[in-house]
Amino acid sequence: MADAFMAAAIAEAQHGLAEGGIPIGSIIVHRGEIIGRGHNRRVQQGSVVLHGEMDAFENAGRRPGAVYRECTLYTTLSPCAMCSGAILLYGIRHVIVGENQSFMGEEDLLRSRGVQVDVLQDAQCIALMDRFMHASPELWNEDIGV
Amino acid sequence: MADAFMAAAIAEAQHGLAEGGIPIGSIIVHRGEIIGRGHNRRVQQGSVVLHGEMDAFENAGRRPGAVYRECTLYTTLSPCAMCSGAILLYGIRHVIVGENQSFMGEEDLLRSRGVQVDVLQDAQCIALMDRFMHASPELWNEDIGV
Repeated sequence: MADAFMAAAIAEAQHGLAEGGIPIGSIIVHRGEIIGRGHNRRVQQGSVVLHGEMDAFENAGRRPGAVYRECTLYTTLSPCAMCSGAILLYGIRHVIVGENQSFMGEEDLLRSRGVQVDVLQDAQCIALMDRFMHASPELWNEDIGV
Repeated sequence: MADAFMAAAIAEAQHGLAEGGIPIGSIIVHRGEIIGRGHNRRVQQGSVVLHGEMDAFENAGRRPGAVYRECTLYTTLSPCAMCSGAILLYGIRHVIVGENQSFMGEEDLLRSRGVQVDVLQDAQCIALMDRFMHASPELWNEDIGV
């Protein structure tokens, strides 16, 4: 079951790549059902807030806090400070990360607040980012790069 | 100068209130110039990611990381985990908060990462939130309330 949800997150990342965007995707699951899907929209919408995870929250839409607190979030790449903050804000208790070799997000912060963070080091997720970071370093480094 | 920027953040909050929304506003300032303005869009756009600060980032748009790192962010209310995460992601070094009596955000986290956080306890900011929280408790408690 977990594999199917990560596959859906990867499909979102691939969708983003096909649009010319940054290949990071995310899925939010509530009681076994996908309630939000998203991928990074920096290129497509010029958005600086719609990372994959944020786009998944946005597409899940307005829900009672109790719903979010029962959700599991899948993301192809380790969540950055902003997305980790959203995970904390909405009380997500379980995050499944495709990989953290391309980028290490705020996993320690999440765990310190009681969030279970599982990292798969999925080969497909790693390959997606590796190809992208080598093909478009200026885009990858645009926002927070040195 | 600081007062004029907080006044602009308050004007954003009042704009949001006039639209039927949650009265929280934010301004991002780069070298003395406002480059982003925003207010909470939960009601207006059904957005769960566009808090005031996030909306200000979104309206500032795609900028080189070096620009964000020179910015000061003004917000009428203490920034939540998501907005604090965005502040950390974009390397904002200075945050000026209207008040933290209505809601205490992640000021300690920001300070622990080296961000200067100044809290004004501004009477106008406090009054805006106080009136709103009493008039619309169900809206205020919808997302992360108990």
